[in-house]
Amino acid sequence: MSTRIVSIFVLLILAIACTRVEQVDWEDGTWIDLTYEYSDETIYWPTSDTFQLDTVFVGEAEGGYYYEAYAFASAEHGGTHLDAPIHFYEGGESVEQIEIDQLTGYAVVIDVSEPVADNRDYQIQTSDITSWEEEYGPIPDGSIVLFKTGMGAYWPDAEAYLGTANRGEDALAELSFPGIHPDAAQWIVENRDIKAVGLDTPSLDYGQSERYEAHQVLFEHNIAGFENVANLDQLPTTGAYVIALPMKIKEGSGAPLRIVALVHE
Amino acid sequence: MSTRIVSIFVLLILAIACTRVEQVDWEDGTWIDLTYEYSDETIYWPTSDTFQLDTVFVGEAEGGYYYEAYAFASAEHGGTHLDAPIHFYEGGESVEQIEIDQLTGYAVVIDVSEPVADNRDYQIQTSDITSWEEEYGPIPDGSIVLFKTGMGAYWPDAEAYLGTANRGEDALAELSFPGIHPDAAQWIVENRDIKAVGLDTPSLDYGQSERYEAHQVLFEHNIAGFENVANLDQLPTTGAYVIALPMKIKEGSGAPLRIVALVHE
Repeated sequence: MSTRIVSIFVLLILAIACTRVEQVDWEDGTWIDLTYEYSDETIYWPTSDTFQLDTVFVGEAEGGYYYEAYAFASAEHGGTHLDAPIHFYEGGESVEQIEIDQLTGYAVVIDVSEPVADNRDYQIQTSDITSWEEEYGPIPDGSIVLFKTGMGAYWPDAEAYLGTANRGEDALAELSFPGIHPDAAQWIVENRDIKAVGLDTPSLDYGQSERYEAHQVLFEHNIAGFENVANLDQLPTTGAYVIALPMKIKEGSGAPLRIVALVHE
Repeated sequence: MSTRIVSIFVLLILAIACTRVEQVDWEDGTWIDLTYEYSDETIYWPTSDTFQLDTVFVGEAEGGYYYEAYAFASAEHGGTHLDAPIHFYEGGESVEQIEIDQLTGYAVVIDVSEPVADNRDYQIQTSDITSWEEEYGPIPDGSIVLFKTGMGAYWPDAEAYLGTANRGEDALAELSFPGIHPDAAQWIVENRDIKAVGLDTPSLDYGQSERYEAHQVLFEHNIAGFENVANLDQLPTTGAYVIALPMKIKEGSGAPLRIVALVHE
């Protein structure tokens, strides 16, 4: 073949092949929903308002057509939800100020279910992160880090998931679930450039935290939090693309979050 | 060059080029937020509960750290929101039953702002769709069709956007905005295989509709609706990828929707 024919051939193959890849990138993957439903069963912090759905109308309307509508109420921080930096950091971003780019990125899934199985009050250590990196390489810039503690298996059993099914101030002493140790949060902000952190527990800090310092450290560096994330066991360790879109509450400190991941084979 | 070398060359170029495309596809585009904020200004149907944000706590907590939290309430169908098929079709899908795949897809933007500029009670005609197709080709299977009526320019001025700033049953007679003619909805479900329909008005049907037949036709065919969609003027006619994630309300007939689009140059 002449060089000219070879060139045309290469360009043609490239055009066909790359067009195909661009098209299948979105449409060929599988969406995994990492979100719990809002219902009477949704788990909230013991001192928070819970989810309430009120019927506006259900049935045949006067005009002769079927019609259903509801109204709802909720605390910001229940179910699968976003923590905006302002939740624990004065002057931090509120919900509507967080750019979509900050809420979307490739996921890094760090499995800490082994130490949590031994101790449900476990605090995720810097060594959990560095051990992961020894196997998979440094957490890439722009990642969304998801800690899989295994607590998601207990949802929606509040006693098993939170450590208590009681409600009110007194129940706070009974909270028992794992979270991120403030030193590990500090290591992340000093050493890695990530967009957000999520986990399958109700809080970035562990249940017995009194000052919520992991929250403070991350939020001071404008890293948003995703809490009560569902179905983390369905994600690969790397390669899933996460899209986490909160209800756009102006000046909100948090919001219901619909978080999904696109996974390719 | 021998055929063998040509083959290796082609494969190498392919590998490099296609890997690059897969990697940049997500991260190189620009996210456009097609969502209005929820606040006191958010426009609701005249008979609906509006958005309410209640302060739980703002300031220095007992533990010596900064803390902010709120609770909120809303009707399902206000602001930028999803209409689930069950809203107007008995037995249709409720919010949590709609697959993510149904809420994500390439957008087709059909501009009907010209006839709307002449008549704000305009009903989008089948000919508006077929004219678009004459220029851009048939609406591809799996598209999300977004009608740009131009009404978004009036948000958040309720009188300009809805036709009335009054509230309550009596205000319904004053509603004046465009929507989809039931015949055009019928043409869509009979001739095209789309995932969802959205527009920059408060309702799929026009303001003076009494039976909401465009809703009925689309919902009977399990095509979800996106209403009060923002920033449609920032989308190209084709090529934007839309991701529309509603708050996951179990058995909801609708929900606050965070709808975004990824646009490549």
